[in-house]
Amino acid sequence: MVKVKLVGATGYGGLGFVETALRHPEIELACLVAVEGAGKTLPQVWPYMQGFCDMPIYAPDSDEALGADADVVVFSTPDGVGQAGAPREVAAGRRVLDYSGDYRFNTTDLYHEYATRIGKDPVHKAPELLTESVYGLTELHRAEIAKATVVGNPGCFAMSCTVGLAPAFKMGLVEPVGVVCDCKTGISGAGKKPSAGFHYPERYDDANAYRLTGHQHVMEIERELSALSGSDVRVTFTPQVVPMTRGIMSCLYGRLPAGMTQTKVLAGYREFYKGEPFILVKDFKEAASTGMVRGSNRAMLTIACDERTGTFRVISHIDNLVKGQAGSAIQNVNVMFGLPETMGLDQPGAHP
Amino acid sequence: MVKVKLVGATGYGGLGFVETALRHPEIELACLVAVEGAGKTLPQVWPYMQGFCDMPIYAPDSDEALGADADVVVFSTPDGVGQAGAPREVAAGRRVLDYSGDYRFNTTDLYHEYATRIGKDPVHKAPELLTESVYGLTELHRAEIAKATVVGNPGCFAMSCTVGLAPAFKMGLVEPVGVVCDCKTGISGAGKKPSAGFHYPERYDDANAYRLTGHQHVMEIERELSALSGSDVRVTFTPQVVPMTRGIMSCLYGRLPAGMTQTKVLAGYREFYKGEPFILVKDFKEAASTGMVRGSNRAMLTIACDERTGTFRVISHIDNLVKGQAGSAIQNVNVMFGLPETMGLDQPGAHP
Amino acid sequence: MVKVKLVGATGYGGLGFVETALRHPEIELACLVAVEGAGKTLPQVWPYMQGFCDMPIYAPDSDEALGADADVVVFSTPDGVGQAGAPREVAAGRRVLDYSGDYRFNTTDLYHEYATRIGKDPVHKAPELLTESVYGLTELHRAEIAKATVVGNPGCFAMSCTVGLAPAFKMGLVEPVGVVCDCKTGISGAGKKPSAGFHYPERYDDANAYRLTGHQHVMEIERELSALSGSDVRVTFTPQVVPMTRGIMSCLYGRLPAGMTQTKVLAGYREFYKGEPFILVKDFKEAASTGMVRGSNRAMLTIACDERTGTFRVISHIDNLVKGQAGSAIQNVNVMFGLPETMGLDQPGAHP
Amino acid sequence: MVKVKLVGATGYGGLGFVETALRHPEIELACLVAVEGAGKTLPQVWPYMQGFCDMPIYAPDSDEALGADADVVVFSTPDGVGQAGAPREVAAGRRVLDYSGDYRFNTTDLYHEYATRIGKDPVHKAPELLTESVYGLTELHRAEIAKATVVGNPGCFAMSCTVGLAPAFKMGLVEPVGVVCDCKTGISGAGKKPSAGFHYPERYDDANAYRLTGHQHVMEIERELSALSGSDVRVTFTPQVVPMTRGIMSCLYGRLPAGMTQTKVLAGYREFYKGEPFILVKDFKEAASTGMVRGSNRAMLTIACDERTGTFRVISHIDNLVKGQAGSAIQNVNVMFGLPETMGLDQPGAHP
Repeated sequence: MVKVKLVGATGYGGLGFVETALRHPEIELACLVAVEGAGKTLPQVWPYMQGFCDMPIYAPDSDEALGADADVVVFSTPDGVGQAGAPREVAAGRRVLDYSGDYRFNTTDLYHEYATRIGKDPVHKAPELLTESVYGLTELHRAEIAKATVVGNPGCFAMSCTVGLAPAFKMGLVEPVGVVCDCKTGISGAGKKPSAGFHYPERYDDANAYRLTGHQHVMEIERELSALSGSDVRVTFTPQVVPMTRGIMSCLYGRLPAGMTQTKVLAGYREFYKGEPFILVKDFKEAASTGMVRGSNRAMLTIACDERTGTFRVISHIDNLVKGQAGSAIQNVNVMFGLPETMGLDQPGAHP
Repeated sequence: MVKVKLVGATGYGGLGFVETALRHPEIELACLVAVEGAGKTLPQVWPYMQGFCDMPIYAPDSDEALGADADVVVFSTPDGVGQAGAPREVAAGRRVLDYSGDYRFNTTDLYHEYATRIGKDPVHKAPELLTESVYGLTELHRAEIAKATVVGNPGCFAMSCTVGLAPAFKMGLVEPVGVVCDCKTGISGAGKKPSAGFHYPERYDDANAYRLTGHQHVMEIERELSALSGSDVRVTFTPQVVPMTRGIMSCLYGRLPAGMTQTKVLAGYREFYKGEPFILVKDFKEAASTGMVRGSNRAMLTIACDERTGTFRVISHIDNLVKGQAGSAIQNVNVMFGLPETMGLDQPGAHP
Repeated sequence: MVKVKLVGATGYGGLGFVETALRHPEIELACLVAVEGAGKTLPQVWPYMQGFCDMPIYAPDSDEALGADADVVVFSTPDGVGQAGAPREVAAGRRVLDYSGDYRFNTTDLYHEYATRIGKDPVHKAPELLTESVYGLTELHRAEIAKATVVGNPGCFAMSCTVGLAPAFKMGLVEPVGVVCDCKTGISGAGKKPSAGFHYPERYDDANAYRLTGHQHVMEIERELSALSGSDVRVTFTPQVVPMTRGIMSCLYGRLPAGMTQTKVLAGYREFYKGEPFILVKDFKEAASTGMVRGSNRAMLTIACDERTGTFRVISHIDNLVKGQAGSAIQNVNVMFGLPETMGLDQPGAHP
Repeated sequence: MVKVKLVGATGYGGLGFVETALRHPEIELACLVAVEGAGKTLPQVWPYMQGFCDMPIYAPDSDEALGADADVVVFSTPDGVGQAGAPREVAAGRRVLDYSGDYRFNTTDLYHEYATRIGKDPVHKAPELLTESVYGLTELHRAEIAKATVVGNPGCFAMSCTVGLAPAFKMGLVEPVGVVCDCKTGISGAGKKPSAGFHYPERYDDANAYRLTGHQHVMEIERELSALSGSDVRVTFTPQVVPMTRGIMSCLYGRLPAGMTQTKVLAGYREFYKGEPFILVKDFKEAASTGMVRGSNRAMLTIACDERTGTFRVISHIDNLVKGQAGSAIQNVNVMFGLPETMGLDQPGAHP
């Protein structure tokens, strides 16, 4: 059994981890930690958990949290929390997986740029852990994740785009310049905290783009694509919110290189992701939607290049709370501890 | 392993059964049968099932369907189908569970009245099976279900109301006359077939009551409550549709008998449902909602009598597709085959 | 032209008044007042208003607000605001219409009980205005409203229930004891302020009842029905929230008096509301829904008594923001100033 | 008064026209015509219209429809209907405005290509009317519309994209090659007819792209942009459906020409649309959403070029049923008959 200490257990990312862990035969929730809800049980915060997970929630600095018997600590917390907490956990012999941007960049320079962009202190609090951390996009970094002490789980938008573009950049299926990521997300991506824009009456029949000057997720995407292509990649990123709860649909555009065709792109993607349990590659004639991956850890990629205009086009569909967050985390924990990668992730969501 | 032949596999009720069966350690889907989709695989009809359940769908009269190696046949089909098909299945040594009204009444007289009300042929096609069939409300008929050859699964509205009123009628906590069931359902209760009233633009911000002259579900409720109270019970039933996909919230009203109090009613419900794994009884000060049982096989009952006006009031919350349909079916299969009653049903739904 | 000073212009109730005023040929918005948004223009708070209503928003105690050239002041504000502000307005020669509970009760005793129930100071700040104020349910108090200095606009739930029950209590179509109001509201009824329960992901597929111990609206209903019937009426009230933005559907139940029939109740309602421009009385065989009154100032009443069980049943549908709030306010302003009652309210909403 | 005969009065496009006409001081609905609902009144099909528009619906070939006293016939009908009907109307002295693709192309060659693409008979039934018809994008063809006998109203997607790209192509603010239109629509764009994909439970939390091989609307866009730029423009078009009822949000991408900046593009758009009553041009720092134009005839354009990547980006927001359909039709009727262009269109929608 892999014993998990879950920090940030009462947010959506924490709940998703608990839900999956409950059906995972080799993960044991050793300790739930959170600021909000500390001193209560999980069902006292989230009544639907009553009888399924009645564990207490401990404050981060409580004896129970600090002394938890855990193999790995999952930080489902905002930027800054895992960064500060990881050294202590690692010193205590625990491995770490962090949902935030704290460990998505493995140089202090890149972190500095990222932190500046989101208005945080640009000096990382654990630079030695940062430099040895691994980016947790399993399909691209499986071997390093298996050995990593600290894993930085990808952001949900970045997961959607990077999974959708990796084969193209690795195999030269798209011109590396001028790529556009047009990304539509459901509202759960913003977390559980109420806000004016996500108040039900304001949101129920409304769509909008936001943060058009730059969004932190673009850095992750560019870093990964640059590494895959060997060039300095820049992409245009348009985050949008549509009135649904779960799901990201990212339309990824670029120019087709001379001689490149839909058939070749499709074949390239199928080759690149051959054997991957969570990546479905589809021709544009096949049905695809966010609803088809809702509740599952899958990315569904529709290859739909437009030869008439010379346009590369791939549409990536994920559930932002699963492949975009907790599912991906479970997948990484499986890899980190030598478990079958699909363990606990072998079920579809509930339809409708 | 209990081998299940599932008829009507491509409707919402069928999908719900498949989803649960996939995580049930002792249920094996032996054969999927449906009219719609016959000749295809399940993912060809419902792509989200790809890789999770890739089974073929057979036509009802195909050799594969007729010769399936199954212990039990689950009819997730409209009225009339299970009725006609059950005798053949029973003759072949299979037990039967039917989702429709075909086996919810165990006398030809009651069936005659029911069928007349819904505009069907009032002569039951398998009267000998009908008379020995058992009403599948597990909490009320557990022992008979365990031995039953044919089980008639309750309707979703009836489940919601009967579970919510059974203690009151059995224990005299409500006057048996003048009870009102005010029931709000999500739209999935109407099944997958598109219709004008459930077209997204017509339904997204709209609520209405329907079939105010009588709804077939009232007969089940009245039959059960009459049996529990020993009197001839009649209830007023108001089915309503609200713009959500899953969930039934039924507000159940009546008159408090002289001397009856909220405290006594609450104590009665707790006593009646003591030890029941799927029934949660709550005081009105505790939070409750359909969302809290979404995806689970639970009924959440809020006891909220109004002593100021002498009004008995209980609010019953279920997921119409789980406790109201497929979950209840799995629960009954567990009981029929001597499995732990919560097997496959021990997980919460996904939130949000 | 009737010149209106609108206090609380940036809430949903204020916006609804502005929207209707913009198409009303005899209402002129003289001054917009609000705490939130003071110092900005209306479109700076609500961009959809740009070019339609670009007026500045003044703080309540600003010179512009205090010195506004207005015939009537509409307080679209929380409890307590209109109470404190009305005397000053009346002294300045302006009439007052208030959306809150401040002027719904015309005795200090009743107000004391109401304020206690909602946890406010039970001593009214303007008792002399209170005692001469008129309850703004136009269909019941038209003549008094025409002459009133201060009108207290009904609450949305109370409007729905009182309009739906008034004929029955006045004409003896229902037993006056044991009446139940089962009321489902859309979320806009809670206003624009974000909260955990109305955060989109928490609300999109969820229904619940709330405040089961008592809701302030019941007092209005009971006071009106008592006056109509000449007895001391008490009703049971169950407020519920369903995932829609606009609309209230109230199912109103009681016992039919001996000899009372659906036909007689229907005839009574048609008689009672004969000539009323905003009340539609329908037989249960006719379609009705909240969507059918969405955006209009109508109440649609479905008469659906259940003679089989002796149950009186009327279903009342309104748009909580129109007939339940701003539309009703406009209707009252029309009456107060001798304008045609339907002026500005003669258009349907937009479908879908 | 402009007398309008409205064909297809019972669809969403027809209802939108009726709703606006009801508040338009110079439009009179002379005759409602439809296949579905013929012989009934409008409220018998759409009860919310009761008392607002109680007109009868006539069959297309009825004497009442053929002999209607009308100045203009609005065909809110599928492809093929207006084409066949227009000659007769024109012969009777009526002008024609058609919502479908029948009169969006003014050469038989273009029509041939369009009709082939949508699987219709490529031979136009009224080529002489076709060649003199005018494309009804008012902002681009105002003068011709004023004199036109037959106007072809733009498709909703095409409206959104063409309005959003016209200044760029006219003024050289974007490279004319490689433009991408990433378009998200609400579901009302598909009309009132129920279908599996728009059944509420299938759609409530789902987003997808469709018709990725080509969508009829691209031809309109390319024709207009080619005319504006003087080159042969081809765009990539990705239609998507998201779970809302009203609204189109189109993200329009291209390459910035050398030296082009966000500031220059913004200035260009403001210049191009100076004085246009229905076009709002916004900098990316200003809030914008489909909700902000819901119910109004506006297009809200957010200029958000990404200089870092050299990417031109404009986001166009409209209400697909207003500026994308009935509102645009009213605007054109105003122009055709010399009325003020904003008449009947001078009000915001209802919020929320």
